[in-house]
Amino acid sequence: MEIINDSQGMALALEWAAKSMFITTPNPRVGCVIVKNGQVVGAGATQPPGQAHAEVQALQDAARRGADVRGATVYVTLEPCSHYGRTPPCADALIRAGVGRVVAALGDPNPLVGGEGVAKLRAAGIEVLTDVGADAAREMNIGFLSRMQRGRPWVRMKAAASLDGKTALHNGQSQWITSSAARDDGHWWRARACAILTGIGTVQEDDPQLNVRAVETPRQPRRIVIDSRLQIEPSARVLAGGGTWIVAAVPDPDKEAQLRALGAEIIMLPNARGKVDLPALMQELGRRQINELHVEAGFKLNGSLIRERCVDELLLYLAPSVLGDAQGLFDLQAPASLDQKTPLSFHEIKQIGPDLRILARFT
Amino acid sequence: MEIINDSQGMALALEWAAKSMFITTPNPRVGCVIVKNGQVVGAGATQPPGQAHAEVQALQDAARRGADVRGATVYVTLEPCSHYGRTPPCADALIRAGVGRVVAALGDPNPLVGGEGVAKLRAAGIEVLTDVGADAAREMNIGFLSRMQRGRPWVRMKAAASLDGKTALHNGQSQWITSSAARDDGHWWRARACAILTGIGTVQEDDPQLNVRAVETPRQPRRIVIDSRLQIEPSARVLAGGGTWIVAAVPDPDKEAQLRALGAEIIMLPNARGKVDLPALMQELGRRQINELHVEAGFKLNGSLIRERCVDELLLYLAPSVLGDAQGLFDLQAPASLDQKTPLSFHEIKQIGPDLRILARFT
Repeated sequence: MEIINDSQGMALALEWAAKSMFITTPNPRVGCVIVKNGQVVGAGATQPPGQAHAEVQALQDAARRGADVRGATVYVTLEPCSHYGRTPPCADALIRAGVGRVVAALGDPNPLVGGEGVAKLRAAGIEVLTDVGADAAREMNIGFLSRMQRGRPWVRMKAAASLDGKTALHNGQSQWITSSAARDDGHWWRARACAILTGIGTVQEDDPQLNVRAVETPRQPRRIVIDSRLQIEPSARVLAGGGTWIVAAVPDPDKEAQLRALGAEIIMLPNARGKVDLPALMQELGRRQINELHVEAGFKLNGSLIRERCVDELLLYLAPSVLGDAQGLFDLQAPASLDQKTPLSFHEIKQIGPDLRILARFT
Repeated sequence: MEIINDSQGMALALEWAAKSMFITTPNPRVGCVIVKNGQVVGAGATQPPGQAHAEVQALQDAARRGADVRGATVYVTLEPCSHYGRTPPCADALIRAGVGRVVAALGDPNPLVGGEGVAKLRAAGIEVLTDVGADAAREMNIGFLSRMQRGRPWVRMKAAASLDGKTALHNGQSQWITSSAARDDGHWWRARACAILTGIGTVQEDDPQLNVRAVETPRQPRRIVIDSRLQIEPSARVLAGGGTWIVAAVPDPDKEAQLRALGAEIIMLPNARGKVDLPALMQELGRRQINELHVEAGFKLNGSLIRERCVDELLLYLAPSVLGDAQGLFDLQAPASLDQKTPLSFHEIKQIGPDLRILARFT
């Protein structure tokens, strides 16, 4: 494949970044492609934390191929790092390799990097161009950017409903409104998240495993349950295997001990009304390095999260059916007048099997 | 413009048919293009009832241009008619003109034509090809085909809702959930309909004019109000100018006389429960030559129409907002279990300004 211009080179680097979609958390997904004389001579993507970043992967790939990267152009979806973290700085590796030009999609929002990577490269006489393919690169690391810039995760609320906005019958039946294609697609979004959050209501009603099954992933997201009064049963499937975070508001030392014995961690975050302080939880999850938070909850918790402005994006699967008098999507008091409605904007619409997938963002 | 193949010729004929979208009712919208030596030498579309059909328009256009149509290929979006209706048969006109070949998108479902046009042309030695661009031609005349094949109109229910399926606040406020772009688009669908139907609830709540304003049209659709107990006020705007059909179930001679004096017509169609018999109404509207019926009603009538299987298609504008505890779309009892939900299929999805337009069909 010949690379004839920068947007083509960056498109390929973004494809490489996508290969690491499920594995880099809490680090960003980065892809890197090295081009010399129009030919790709090396490519790579960020590996799990502590392992090689994309640039080093690409340099190693080039070395394996016996390619001379001196004077080559390097396409990378994020500014090369300049600091010693779990791995040495990528900017240094690129300078040592003698590349001639670096094209980066985005500056690094990490305050530990923040333009220093670019400065270092330029100081070494390397030509640097930024903001090529920036929108796509931003989408890919929307959670990492959110955490760096706002101190909290990008929160994506997944829901499935009929065309008239119903998610379940009043008897609780919700399996299934959408198709298996839509449900499998939902697992792809689970897999890319750092954590999946639900509420005690859903745990009691559906006993979900809250893991990724329909797509292959070497990493399972963290499971988080909002359970103000620690009502969760030790037999709940979401606790299986340990590592689940239970977010509570009312201490219960015995129950806490019991849950800890099952490998769970208790995060106590009460607000003044004895419920979980949801905005504070989002900050806490930011501190805990959660980039993308995937919410799959019910009517009540969905409503609370929207009301408390904790949701950035709706991932809504609409089935081509009508249900009538059934359970709605969000337990939310209507505004006093229509000009006070909660606004979003459509980001992407796609047909998934017989269903419609709507990505809409709160504005 | 050179026409190099049949699908190109038919695409142009369909464009011509679209020009007559608002004016041909109760006749079908038909476009016709005459091509000789790869050049368009004549084109036309069906005019209002009693005036020229598309083929005659195209032949006249060719004559005006001084073109010789002998041996030419004629692209027409519906089988040329073979009978004397309000105008003489188009098949005869084509034969007289000496055209060499006719390409028709669809056979005519009108039992008065039904293949006879094609037979007549072939008997005259004209080569005839059908089913070119048939899907698009069917969409354009979906109402005419429905009336010919099922004896009732194609019923399109328009609704506007928030992403959580709410159409109004509980205080009745519904102006506006969607954008002006979406509302204007809605008027295009009104304009192509033969009639617009609403219920007495909407008349009492919103006092709609039920006419086309946002797009230009030389013809206003018939207005129809379902009003079982003849509760409509003589001052209702939907009665202005006369011609409105009021569909009732409970006779009230004085009120009927009062409404007739305003130019309205009363259609008495009670069912056993003293309400309007909706399926019987659809048959009656078929007899009255309504091809496409555009429904803009409220929660209750929408629910009744869906429950009684009178709706073929939803035209749903979804706004990027959530409303919470507000009025839902359809007053419809939920099924006992999810596998008995009312199924549809998505036909077309389009972004209209900030909103989403969903066309979904009941299956």
